[in-house]
Amino acid sequence: MHKNFKGVDKTVFGRGSFDQLGDILAPRRTGDDPYMVFVVDAYFKGKPLAGRLPAEANDRVYFISVEEHEPTTDQIDTLRDEILAQQGLPAGVIGIGGGSIMDIAKALSLMLTNEGSSTQYQGLNLIKKPGVYHVGVPTISGTGAEVSMTAVLTGPVKKLGLKCEWTVFDQLVLDPDLIASVPRDWWFYTGMDTFIHCIESENGHFNNAYSHAYAEQSLALCRQVFTVGQNPETDEKLMVASLMGGLSLTYSEVGVCHALSYGLSKILGTRHCYANCLIMNHLEDYYPEGVAEFKQLAALHQINLPQGLSAEWDDDTITKMAHVSYNLPHMWHHAIGEDWEQHITIDGLKDLFRRL
Amino acid sequence: MHKNFKGVDKTVFGRGSFDQLGDILAPRRTGDDPYMVFVVDAYFKGKPLAGRLPAEANDRVYFISVEEHEPTTDQIDTLRDEILAQQGLPAGVIGIGGGSIMDIAKALSLMLTNEGSSTQYQGLNLIKKPGVYHVGVPTISGTGAEVSMTAVLTGPVKKLGLKCEWTVFDQLVLDPDLIASVPRDWWFYTGMDTFIHCIESENGHFNNAYSHAYAEQSLALCRQVFTVGQNPETDEKLMVASLMGGLSLTYSEVGVCHALSYGLSKILGTRHCYANCLIMNHLEDYYPEGVAEFKQLAALHQINLPQGLSAEWDDDTITKMAHVSYNLPHMWHHAIGEDWEQHITIDGLKDLFRRL
Repeated sequence: MHKNFKGVDKTVFGRGSFDQLGDILAPRRTGDDPYMVFVVDAYFKGKPLAGRLPAEANDRVYFISVEEHEPTTDQIDTLRDEILAQQGLPAGVIGIGGGSIMDIAKALSLMLTNEGSSTQYQGLNLIKKPGVYHVGVPTISGTGAEVSMTAVLTGPVKKLGLKCEWTVFDQLVLDPDLIASVPRDWWFYTGMDTFIHCIESENGHFNNAYSHAYAEQSLALCRQVFTVGQNPETDEKLMVASLMGGLSLTYSEVGVCHALSYGLSKILGTRHCYANCLIMNHLEDYYPEGVAEFKQLAALHQINLPQGLSAEWDDDTITKMAHVSYNLPHMWHHAIGEDWEQHITIDGLKDLFRRL
Repeated sequence: MHKNFKGVDKTVFGRGSFDQLGDILAPRRTGDDPYMVFVVDAYFKGKPLAGRLPAEANDRVYFISVEEHEPTTDQIDTLRDEILAQQGLPAGVIGIGGGSIMDIAKALSLMLTNEGSSTQYQGLNLIKKPGVYHVGVPTISGTGAEVSMTAVLTGPVKKLGLKCEWTVFDQLVLDPDLIASVPRDWWFYTGMDTFIHCIESENGHFNNAYSHAYAEQSLALCRQVFTVGQNPETDEKLMVASLMGGLSLTYSEVGVCHALSYGLSKILGTRHCYANCLIMNHLEDYYPEGVAEFKQLAALHQINLPQGLSAEWDDDTITKMAHVSYNLPHMWHHAIGEDWEQHITIDGLKDLFRRL
């Protein structure tokens, strides 16, 4: 049984394509008093991009900070309730930002039409109805959230996505100019998310000719980007690499690094791409070549990943992380094999976390 | 103004995925007396694949020969009229075959809901209404028709596609086992269509980071396929190469070879992929490296492309070919530049055809 992968409906790529957003939204403004909801990374508040939003009089613009924490089920439910109470169902949701904003836009689109708390929809195909029209406009590249079938949320119990075909964006606007101002450390952490997606997608049971072709090209682009540094040309390449890395993992699976990263983020709130980098640094046993290359690239960009973090974590904290990670069977099945439970134990995972 | 590219809605890839087709179609069988139309390459009549079609009692199965000619506007109109007269609007159309069958399935889907002759819709965005649900199941790889936004038809005046976002398939089933039985010469001609797509997409004005990434990977796969030969592993690679080559040209454009190929096919009925190969063999002036590589691969597979064909064509025939080719301004703009009319003339095109 092979996956039936849902693709993004429409994609525009190129410098300055952000200025086409107004024309793209226009035919979607149908019905009585249609309005759009813009969900924009608070980083852009007061910046030139905020002045270029094609928002009309009725539209709602939310500047949302993603500094404090990754998207939560509570946050989505509260935002959804406020929007519906004040203005009813919007014609569309436009997310402008990084992976967290992509996830917020995707989750909000779904929760505007699905009753109750988003916690009850964390998992595969639990969503009952299509969401509202939703558009993704990435301003930092690497997470692949722009093409993925999931909107990852941290809930009271799980860090897990709302995963179904309706999660996927109806429209992407990929304008490489928008990622030009990303700070270098986050450019690295987020770009490395793509690199790690490809290493994990390639090294596992579910890899196949389709996911391999995407990972191979995405890795080639990552190498062209991260051996050179950030410039307009490599911004274009990184934007395509992120998309292709996302498509690779969608048709294959992520592995050990993401499983551990979810544990770290769920328990300590560490942001996803940074958590991945902290962990990848210690996974030589699983991905020897990938980790060696990762370390070379980190050194090249003078990215100093902290060591000895686990010295400050008590056993209870580490045990909780291990349980979150253990509870991601599809990743372990991919990375280790069908009999992964014979190789991966809570104690083994705790040892891995203690390397941090 | 950047293109807003419509993607295939859902894609399943992998050996044996053809057996998932019944389950994929089941939820689409809604309404009163829903039925499906299967459009299958006549090559498969009486072959094992014909026995594996998930056709139900009410469904219609057409085995269509694509040997005699490429799809025509007349053919689509007649088929559409017959289907509607006998059984009304179907729930879906499933095309199982090569590029011609893909084009027939896409065009039929559109013409089932758009009144009048398909000749009036040849061109960009002339179609008025979405077609019926349509599924592509390639049995030979290379044309990229499985992902393209066009359904190429030969009409009384033009060889030109029904090109709009509704043309794109709702579902692809990519089963590499289905292309295992392709005869070697057509495996080469059709596979080289992908190779030529990439060479043309890369070498022109509209190439960009997105189309380049797809062309680069598609070319890498083509090289892995055509320096090795046909086997189960290279069948998988060629299927992915075809998809990626198609995506590359969709976001860029084809060039000199396709412009000439359309002229040859329109006037003499030469089949598309074979026509491309006949012409590519003589385009050193435009694509020196690509043509050199093409010739090496042809020699490796002992593909002997005939020479001296034009000796049997009179001036009137060659003039007609040149006019068809000249009348593809988007291809010439891409390949030569905005001022292409200063470089490309009917006489110059006639000289190119005389090389054949």
